[in-house]
Amino acid sequence: MKVFIIGIGLIGGSFAIDIKAAFNEAKIYGIDRSDENLEKALGLGLIDHKSSFDELDKADVVIVAIPVDTTVEILPMILDNIHDDCLVFDAGSTKGKLCDTISQHPKRRNYLAAHPIAGTEFSGPQAAIANLYRGKTNIICEVEKTAFKLQERGMEIFSRLGMRIRYMDPSSHDKHIAYVSHLSHISSFMLGKTVIEKEKNERDIFDMAGSGFASTVRLAKSSPAMWTPIFKHNKNNVIETLEEYIANLEQFKKLMKEDNFDEIYKEMEDTNHIKAILKGIT
Amino acid sequence: MKVFIIGIGLIGGSFAIDIKAAFNEAKIYGIDRSDENLEKALGLGLIDHKSSFDELDKADVVIVAIPVDTTVEILPMILDNIHDDCLVFDAGSTKGKLCDTISQHPKRRNYLAAHPIAGTEFSGPQAAIANLYRGKTNIICEVEKTAFKLQERGMEIFSRLGMRIRYMDPSSHDKHIAYVSHLSHISSFMLGKTVIEKEKNERDIFDMAGSGFASTVRLAKSSPAMWTPIFKHNKNNVIETLEEYIANLEQFKKLMKEDNFDEIYKEMEDTNHIKAILKGIT
Repeated sequence: MKVFIIGIGLIGGSFAIDIKAAFNEAKIYGIDRSDENLEKALGLGLIDHKSSFDELDKADVVIVAIPVDTTVEILPMILDNIHDDCLVFDAGSTKGKLCDTISQHPKRRNYLAAHPIAGTEFSGPQAAIANLYRGKTNIICEVEKTAFKLQERGMEIFSRLGMRIRYMDPSSHDKHIAYVSHLSHISSFMLGKTVIEKEKNERDIFDMAGSGFASTVRLAKSSPAMWTPIFKHNKNNVIETLEEYIANLEQFKKLMKEDNFDEIYKEMEDTNHIKAILKGIT
Repeated sequence: MKVFIIGIGLIGGSFAIDIKAAFNEAKIYGIDRSDENLEKALGLGLIDHKSSFDELDKADVVIVAIPVDTTVEILPMILDNIHDDCLVFDAGSTKGKLCDTISQHPKRRNYLAAHPIAGTEFSGPQAAIANLYRGKTNIICEVEKTAFKLQERGMEIFSRLGMRIRYMDPSSHDKHIAYVSHLSHISSFMLGKTVIEKEKNERDIFDMAGSGFASTVRLAKSSPAMWTPIFKHNKNNVIETLEEYIANLEQFKKLMKEDNFDEIYKEMEDTNHIKAILKGIT
C-alpha cells in the first residue's frame, strides 16, 4: 500500500508512524512545501521516500494534513491527479467549505472528509508521536458520497489505528466543533495575551503561575499558520461562540460588581458538572 | 513538633503527608468542621489525631488551609489561643484582607502570610497527594512582621518540602495573582458554562471534545466553596483582569468580523511567546 502524506507535521507524521506500524506492506511517501521538513521526516524515519505531486498517480491512499485553506486550494488538483482506485482523506478542523469545494468534482467519490479529534499544541515533523489517534474520535462527514470500497479502506486504517468513528454532516460538525475546540483556542490565546500585556516582567508570571495557568493557556502555543485558516473557514460559527462566551463573562463581571456572590457560587457549582462530561477525555 | 492543620482537604492534607515524611518527630493534629473529613483523614493516615480549637495551645505549628473568608474570620481567634512560641501560617490565594485583619493583633508576630502556588482541581482529604509542593513557589508576604525565630521554623518546613520562596507585599500579590490564577479560573468556568449551555446533548461534547478542550476547562472542576471567597476578597483586581480579558476577546471578534486574518495571525504569533514563559511550570 503506497500512502502519500501531504504535510508531514504533527498530524501527518503521526499518521505515518501508526500506519507503518499497523500495515507491514505500507510505504510512506512524503510531500511538503518545506524541503527541510521532508528531510527531517526522512531522518526521523517517518517517511520512506520524499515525493511530489507528480507522483500522486502511484498512490493508494493520500492523506492531506495541511492548513484547511491550502486543502481547499489544492484538493481539486489532488483529485485530478490520482488514479481511480485511490482514497484521499484529510484531517482538517473545518469541513463545510471543503465538502462544498469538491462537491461537483468528477472524483468526489475518491474523497473521504475526516476530522480526527487528536493533536497536541506542538507542530512540525519532530512533534509527530505514536498512538496519537488511539482511543480518539474521528468525525466522518458525508460518508455516503465516498465510494463504498474506499470507505472500507479508510475504515480499515482508522480501525487499526484505534479510532472511534462518528458520522456527522459538515454543517453540524462545523457548528459543534466551534464550541468544543475553536472557542477553547481563542479563550486560551486571549488569556495568554491579557497576562503577557500586563505582566511586563516575565519573571513574575513564571514565579507566580501554577499548573492551573499552564493548563488554561496551553493552547496558546498552537500554530497560527494552522489556526488562522480554521477561524477564517468557520467565521460565523466562531463569532457566535465568542459572543456567547463574552456574554457569560460580562454576566460574571456584573455579578461581581453587584457583590452577588451567592449567584457566583451557583454558577460555578452548575458548571462543576463538566467533571462528568470530561471523564474519559484524556 | 506538634502540627495542627485546620482544614484537612487537598492543601492541608498534602502538607500533612509531606511534613510527616520530612520530620520524623512531627505529630499531625487535624481540625475540620466536617467530622466526616476528619475520619477520612484519620483513615488515610493523613493525621495522627482528631483535634479541636480547645487544644490549640499545644501546637508548635498551625497551618490554616480553609477558604479565605473563613480564615479572615477565625485567624484572630486562632492567634488568641496559641502559646507564644507557636507559628501560624495559611495557604490562602488572597493576602491583603488577611494581613489587614490581624495587623493590630498582639500575636501578629506569630503569623506568617504564605501562598504556596500549588494545587489540583480536586478537593477533600482523598485529594491530598505527596510532593504537591516540591519545586513550587511559595509567596510570603510581610515577612518582616513575623518573629525571626518563627520565620526560621517556617522556612525549615518550606525548604524540606522543596519549595522556592518569593517575597512580596500583599497588595502586589493580590494584583499579580488575579492575572495568573484567578482570571484562569473564571475563563475556564465560563468556557465550560458556554459549552454546556449550547450542547444540551452531552454525548456530542464527549465525542467531539479533545484534550485541548479538557485542558482549557480543567479548572472548571474547582471547588466553588474555595473560589467564591477568593473572588470576593480580590474583587477589584479580578474585575480589572476580567475587563482586560473581555476587551481582548472583543478585539479578536472585531478582527474576525472585519476579515482581518493577517492581524489575527499576528496576535496568535505574538502570544505563542507564552511557550518560553511556561517552560518550567509543570
